[in-house]
Amino acid sequence: MSKYLSPRFDSLDAYTPGEQPRDQKYIKLNTNECPYPPSSKVIEAIDKEKNLLNLYPDPTAKCLKTAIADNLGLNADNIFVANGSDEVLALSFMAFCDKDTGVAYPDISYGFYSVYADLFTLDSKVIPLKDDFSVCPNDYFNLGRTIFIANPNAPTGLCLSLYDIENILINNKNNIVVIDEAYVDFGGESTVKLLDRYENLLVVRTFSKSRNLAGGRVGFALGSKELIADLELMKFSFNPYNINRLSLVSATEAMKDTVYFDDCVSKIKDTRTFLVNELEGLGFNVIPSCANFIFAKKDGISGEELYLKLKNNGILIRHFNKDRISDYIRITIGTKDEIISLIDTIKTIIDEVK
Amino acid sequence: MSKYLSPRFDSLDAYTPGEQPRDQKYIKLNTNECPYPPSSKVIEAIDKEKNLLNLYPDPTAKCLKTAIADNLGLNADNIFVANGSDEVLALSFMAFCDKDTGVAYPDISYGFYSVYADLFTLDSKVIPLKDDFSVCPNDYFNLGRTIFIANPNAPTGLCLSLYDIENILINNKNNIVVIDEAYVDFGGESTVKLLDRYENLLVVRTFSKSRNLAGGRVGFALGSKELIADLELMKFSFNPYNINRLSLVSATEAMKDTVYFDDCVSKIKDTRTFLVNELEGLGFNVIPSCANFIFAKKDGISGEELYLKLKNNGILIRHFNKDRISDYIRITIGTKDEIISLIDTIKTIIDEVK
Repeated sequence: MSKYLSPRFDSLDAYTPGEQPRDQKYIKLNTNECPYPPSSKVIEAIDKEKNLLNLYPDPTAKCLKTAIADNLGLNADNIFVANGSDEVLALSFMAFCDKDTGVAYPDISYGFYSVYADLFTLDSKVIPLKDDFSVCPNDYFNLGRTIFIANPNAPTGLCLSLYDIENILINNKNNIVVIDEAYVDFGGESTVKLLDRYENLLVVRTFSKSRNLAGGRVGFALGSKELIADLELMKFSFNPYNINRLSLVSATEAMKDTVYFDDCVSKIKDTRTFLVNELEGLGFNVIPSCANFIFAKKDGISGEELYLKLKNNGILIRHFNKDRISDYIRITIGTKDEIISLIDTIKTIIDEVK
Repeated sequence: MSKYLSPRFDSLDAYTPGEQPRDQKYIKLNTNECPYPPSSKVIEAIDKEKNLLNLYPDPTAKCLKTAIADNLGLNADNIFVANGSDEVLALSFMAFCDKDTGVAYPDISYGFYSVYADLFTLDSKVIPLKDDFSVCPNDYFNLGRTIFIANPNAPTGLCLSLYDIENILINNKNNIVVIDEAYVDFGGESTVKLLDRYENLLVVRTFSKSRNLAGGRVGFALGSKELIADLELMKFSFNPYNINRLSLVSATEAMKDTVYFDDCVSKIKDTRTFLVNELEGLGFNVIPSCANFIFAKKDGISGEELYLKLKNNGILIRHFNKDRISDYIRITIGTKDEIISLIDTIKTIIDEVK
């Protein structure tokens, strides 16, 4: 830290992304990527576009907004697009929070919410999940704060019902409720269908999980055209050309190729069922998952031990060294072969521990 | 604007990028892009990487930082990389300015400085350029503010000497001086060689102009490892995966391919000389340019009229409807053929106006 850094960042702790070690080849089940490559339509679009990289991309991202709107039955002015859903979230914190309007979010959720709250020096109300890791909707009523809820939640994989979310929306008419649906394509019900009734709803999505484009960095938000205009104002005051040419065409084609999307999501759901059954057979307690990962623990072996032993065996999963969840491990749903390797390795580890 | 937007943005005016019309094919000489496609090495790297887009990019951008460090004779921890130099600037405003430390910048310069100042609700000292559009270094001494100076300046194309910049650095020991060198590869002298002597110097660069990658969105900053650590803290608290996979490998290869870089820059400088001579032959007053654009005016025809008439003839240039420079037009150096078309069209327009 230099002496020039603004003192308001004196105690800022940055977000820690899942590790991306380069020292050896791992089976990577730690960052909730999709294990399948992008659609062949995406590759074709990149090939067509790559020689134009000397020219700026379209800052209005018209082609991408149109593809998303067509897919979801919305209008282009209900869509905001950005450099990953992290940028969508960052600009949402910037737009809808300030010294008078703080934030509220669950204690166990996407780790970036608290980082954004610190970055923008906001007052935070951190609301504990219930003992079973579910969100209690009433805890979020009339807080006078901008609310951030991941649904399905991470790292638990649990879902809130639309009924519960609607209650939160009804009881926060003067504040934005951001529903972060990064994982919604793998289960749960999207709040998109509530958009025409609740002007305080902002839905956040990503191409990183179900659309095979974590490496392309594209996220989006869905909301009233007024909320979207607010986010556009932020973007055009921060980084107007925030999505590069190749990611623009990649995301556009990924959104259009619904056959490939359905196929990949379906395979991941099948593999999830397989993994859950296997782990339960080994005595794990697995939280019911609506996401492309599962959250599980096993008596007799700590989350950290399992994480370290798997890493020693060339398999990366995620462990959070945090109260309430330190017993658990989070496993991304990889390919069937990767998950079979994982299960075999876990069996060996358990046998050794016995 | 929604009722939920923070009131601190009530009077925020976003940046207006150069127009990117899709209604017809134009000769585009309005956004200072490089007219030549990316290096063939860049295309090869994209082809090798594109099937990995389902996986997150390296958030530490190690390969790219190493390539830049090697090129400039610096260490990787002197390099910060981001999603275009606009993001570098945005995060610099965020890191190094606050309610106690405002900003200072010239009245005629990159239009985004004032937008960032408004976005982050900073106190701004806007310092007029001299009548000849040059920066007076003494105006920037000991202001107690973070200073942003584009060198070469845009849209004038004029350069400050290293001697003048060094004086500004010496007389601002307690504040950061950001030298925005977006155009430095086309002329002028880089302040990179001052980095080891001035811990308050931050140099900002881009791949959008001289590296043929405006569509890839990659910018970077050079500074002491402490300043770079400050910017990394901002990035990892805002958007850790801010550069996508394909742009990472593209920029890495663009930095390594110095032969192609030299060739493109050399052609642009030659074409600039040609354009300046032609325009002066037609009676234009052309400001000496160190950039890949020229700034010029002609008695008897307003900047706006020339801009509109060229647009009607399928050629886009930039006109700024702003005091002191509204007589001028800014022309990006395109290919020789594009510039010949431009000159021919200007000749016709001038004949019509007579």
